[in-house]
Amino acid sequence: MAYLPVDDVLREIKGKVRAVIPPSIDVSDVEFEGALVVVYTKHPDKFAKNEDLVKQLAKMLQKRIVVRPDPSVITDIDTAERKIKNIIPKDAEITNIYFMPEVGEVIIEAVKPGVAIGKQGSLLNEIRKQVNWSPRIIRTPPIQSKTVKEIRGYLRSMSEERKEILRKVGRRLHRGVSDGEKFIRVTALGGFRQVGRSCSLLHTPDSKIMIDCGVDVSSNNSTPYLHLPEVLPFETLDAVVITHAHLDHSGLVPLLYKYGYDGPIYCTPPTRDMSTLLQMDYLKVAAADAKKIPYSAENIRDLIKHCIAIGYGDTTDITPDVRLTFHNAGHILGSAIAHFHVGEGLYNIAFSGDIKYERTWLFNPAVNRFPRLEAIFLESTYGGREDFQPTRKQATERLNDIIQTTVKRKGKLLVPVFAVGRSQEVMIVLENLVRTKKIPKINVYLDGMIWEATAIHTAYPEYLNNKLRSQVFQQGENPLLSDIFKRVDSHEMRQKIISDHPESCVVLATSGMMNGGPVMEYFKEWASDKKNTIAFVGYQAEGTTGKRIQKGWDEIPLNNGGNVVNIKMKMQVETCDGFSGHSDRKQLMNFINNMSPRPERIIFGHGEESKCLDIASSVHRRYNINTNALNNLETIRFR
Amino acid sequence: MAYLPVDDVLREIKGKVRAVIPPSIDVSDVEFEGALVVVYTKHPDKFAKNEDLVKQLAKMLQKRIVVRPDPSVITDIDTAERKIKNIIPKDAEITNIYFMPEVGEVIIEAVKPGVAIGKQGSLLNEIRKQVNWSPRIIRTPPIQSKTVKEIRGYLRSMSEERKEILRKVGRRLHRGVSDGEKFIRVTALGGFRQVGRSCSLLHTPDSKIMIDCGVDVSSNNSTPYLHLPEVLPFETLDAVVITHAHLDHSGLVPLLYKYGYDGPIYCTPPTRDMSTLLQMDYLKVAAADAKKIPYSAENIRDLIKHCIAIGYGDTTDITPDVRLTFHNAGHILGSAIAHFHVGEGLYNIAFSGDIKYERTWLFNPAVNRFPRLEAIFLESTYGGREDFQPTRKQATERLNDIIQTTVKRKGKLLVPVFAVGRSQEVMIVLENLVRTKKIPKINVYLDGMIWEATAIHTAYPEYLNNKLRSQVFQQGENPLLSDIFKRVDSHEMRQKIISDHPESCVVLATSGMMNGGPVMEYFKEWASDKKNTIAFVGYQAEGTTGKRIQKGWDEIPLNNGGNVVNIKMKMQVETCDGFSGHSDRKQLMNFINNMSPRPERIIFGHGEESKCLDIASSVHRRYNINTNALNNLETIRFR
Repeated sequence: MAYLPVDDVLREIKGKVRAVIPPSIDVSDVEFEGALVVVYTKHPDKFAKNEDLVKQLAKMLQKRIVVRPDPSVITDIDTAERKIKNIIPKDAEITNIYFMPEVGEVIIEAVKPGVAIGKQGSLLNEIRKQVNWSPRIIRTPPIQSKTVKEIRGYLRSMSEERKEILRKVGRRLHRGVSDGEKFIRVTALGGFRQVGRSCSLLHTPDSKIMIDCGVDVSSNNSTPYLHLPEVLPFETLDAVVITHAHLDHSGLVPLLYKYGYDGPIYCTPPTRDMSTLLQMDYLKVAAADAKKIPYSAENIRDLIKHCIAIGYGDTTDITPDVRLTFHNAGHILGSAIAHFHVGEGLYNIAFSGDIKYERTWLFNPAVNRFPRLEAIFLESTYGGREDFQPTRKQATERLNDIIQTTVKRKGKLLVPVFAVGRSQEVMIVLENLVRTKKIPKINVYLDGMIWEATAIHTAYPEYLNNKLRSQVFQQGENPLLSDIFKRVDSHEMRQKIISDHPESCVVLATSGMMNGGPVMEYFKEWASDKKNTIAFVGYQAEGTTGKRIQKGWDEIPLNNGGNVVNIKMKMQVETCDGFSGHSDRKQLMNFINNMSPRPERIIFGHGEESKCLDIASSVHRRYNINTNALNNLETIRFR
Repeated sequence: MAYLPVDDVLREIKGKVRAVIPPSIDVSDVEFEGALVVVYTKHPDKFAKNEDLVKQLAKMLQKRIVVRPDPSVITDIDTAERKIKNIIPKDAEITNIYFMPEVGEVIIEAVKPGVAIGKQGSLLNEIRKQVNWSPRIIRTPPIQSKTVKEIRGYLRSMSEERKEILRKVGRRLHRGVSDGEKFIRVTALGGFRQVGRSCSLLHTPDSKIMIDCGVDVSSNNSTPYLHLPEVLPFETLDAVVITHAHLDHSGLVPLLYKYGYDGPIYCTPPTRDMSTLLQMDYLKVAAADAKKIPYSAENIRDLIKHCIAIGYGDTTDITPDVRLTFHNAGHILGSAIAHFHVGEGLYNIAFSGDIKYERTWLFNPAVNRFPRLEAIFLESTYGGREDFQPTRKQATERLNDIIQTTVKRKGKLLVPVFAVGRSQEVMIVLENLVRTKKIPKINVYLDGMIWEATAIHTAYPEYLNNKLRSQVFQQGENPLLSDIFKRVDSHEMRQKIISDHPESCVVLATSGMMNGGPVMEYFKEWASDKKNTIAFVGYQAEGTTGKRIQKGWDEIPLNNGGNVVNIKMKMQVETCDGFSGHSDRKQLMNFINNMSPRPERIIFGHGEESKCLDIASSVHRRYNINTNALNNLETIRFR
């Protein structure tokens, strides 16, 4: 299987670049950095003036081009900082400026990024001209996320090493394409005919790409089938793609680094941050439960270091024969459908991850229109023929009723939630009910990881739905920042709320299925008072405390430091369906029915066996599409 | 995935052996040799007397036991040979005696092996007692096969190295079983939805077993998909199993040795010899056609050296969790259905190879009764709904007619045949017609590799069908040895037959589809005479000269040293269907219908795409069995 060595590819590209750029503009070097072709020049301002030049290069090379100043021409940092502060008006409210000499880039954090950029980027051009650094403006987060701050800081501190990593990735993915027979196949490594440990392997003669590497926290077989000849050694993987941050999709990605993987991770920026938060928490919980700790925090840092974050709609080469594009999946912040274009027009295959095909309070519905698509992997969590759920509107009315009734009784409302996704959705609903005066203004306490997850949401408003985005950007109102939300940030504060809160209030607390976490503290104290209410907004698995309460048990046994304590149930128990981040049966069918183009093949996974089989056969019958409910450990061929 | 190291396994076995053997019988060593447990003793005669001891050991260990004399006690070769000749009566007609000191074995080749063995093995016991060598009697082949002779000689000359190989195999396969989750899956590497390059991979947590590794001589993609992570490096394969000798099943096994495989090959003894013949010829033809030669004769010798030949019905451990048993497939000499018992009662899966489910003139019908069976891979060569063929009886009558008519016209009959399988079948029919005086006694000339292939058949009469076997053994009449058959062993002889044969005769000559070989010489001269006949008994592929003749072309273009010569067709053209070694549609359906037990799953391969799909859906509808027409490059999971 012969292919063109990367040095020959690079030499060819250099020749082409030099042929296009006029002799008056210097080109000091050309390099690969991930999928980018980086052109170094002593005349960055001339490049900036001549926008067509970059477009022309990109078109000719069919690559994304970045122009960077040659290190010899950039202004010293102190002078540059002074000049930048002069150029950008005060009311942009600069909060930080970071210089990254290795890439000639300056990152300017501003409360009003639009003001900092200037009309049609005029201020950016001015900065480039005056100091020769490439400016990048980012939004100052309205509330500080510790996770986002630490990740950005870590990446800055590692930027020299990161540049080396990106170069290595670039050299690997720009090797030529082999000249043998083509084929495309996918191996199911986890999460097929089950929920949990999602993991797939896309394989062509030139690519080995892993899609998701999740954990199944509810099972002894918690790890995907990674010890297979198809997968090992991990060094043979070209790329790993994460569809979204939930642990059943991202939880074991750091494990790959522990066992030798050293290639890139592709995901959206919110997925990078959110999965870091969840992975760190996963390690913490494992340690607290004295369980086997699968990897270290160091491996999570490896992931961050190797992460190439790309936004929705930005097509990126990830191997010699595969281009990746992320599309909104509507499930949680940054959740994506990963679309792979294989070969030059050979085949297109997408992995849905988890999708919500409904406009939710937070996100747009999942994208189901693609330039081209022959096959898609779809989730089947609620794919069974009975799996119908209330609409968002119905769910909201139900929550409204529950609050009204509880407030009338002068009771307190406890809502067990997962930190990521459902919490923020319920927050939006509560803010809306208060703002529109459907319910009285009431304190909503956020306990557990919810605050931090919410902070990450506010750092990425462009990933929220159109309505929320315009509310944030045009009306300057972010419902997640409403003053009804109070962060529970100490043990004392929690105790005060539990024992000493004079009026009605709402508490959103983790964990969502009540197998631990701060929610238990509230529950223990409030359960005995029939004025209070506990309301479930998420799925309760069999065997969890949440499920027992939901079923209406009179006494709830709780483990209290080794002793079982029975909690007598007096509080009201309510269930408020319809806030799920998964499409129900009807939404899945609509998603398929409205797809454009209609794919030739659909492979169902991420659901109990019966649900995968049922929806596969229903879709085949109704739409005459070739469907399949793959088993873990099986490989299916597409071309 | 922890398992017991082989040294611990061996230590355990040694302990058990010593506990069972009475202290009066010496046990000098215990070793693994392939699947065998070899017990060395200074008292081989005491062991021989006490048959129960070996049975008891075998039962306790669930292993096959071989007892060998300790090297210190065996009689010197000259004395031993003299004593053996004294013990075995003259009328056993010893033709050769070979001593193999490394294993303490003496091989005695006799025309009448029954006489040499003695009643209930009495003479073998006597030999053991007098000289301490382990005797093994083999039949003197009635006609000498160069292939058989060379292979046996080669194995003798290599016996020291071979012993080392077997020890290595033994140590590898007796490692313990891993303790993780069990699974069983098969990857389709070649010969699915196509005919040619058959190759499958059986994979469990403790085994990687390749079944067949054939070539597709009719295609540019002639090689199975071997360059896959599932397969590479070849050192990771535990075993390779060959179902039968045809090149589409065995042709590329030597290639595995070229690229680093050094493990065992399992096949029946006739398959070993016949595939060597065909592989050597394949190299010769490739060289003659100036094609790329895929491997060297040295690699074929590697195969022979690593070959563990096992007969029908002999169950053998081939990996820590898999036992292999071969069953008659009825297709060609030594052809086998490979039955794999996985785990201790976990699953049973069989690969049919090519099967004939009809008693042919040569072989018993394919076995379709197994102690246990959950899944089987079946061929579909004639699996289409129109693929019905005449019976053997009808085919024989038709051949009778063709000969009668040709003889009446005083013409000559030319039959293009493949060397292996069809030739010998037609020979049996011709001998039968002559012996029963349905046709006059007539010379039948065998040209090409047919003679050698026939010689291999006569070396393995126990692989022929019951009737033929009793004819050979009880009546001492082997129809393949009839004096009507004449070997064409020189260019001069061939020329004399072509130009100067006074009366009618039959010529069986290769190649079967007339794309070269000696058959072309006869054809060129005889085509212009309308008294002559050409009769096809085998499948003619599109585009071959055979197909053109069969279609009735008036002129046949032949390449004659670069120039195209047109041969005017005057001779009669006949087709005599019904001699196929493949089951037709009806036989395949009957094979399935009569199976015991009925399998849960049947996977169809070895057929054009439409035929695989058609029979898969027909069998599913008729028998409600889960069927599948796998694609190359796909993996299917069974457990």
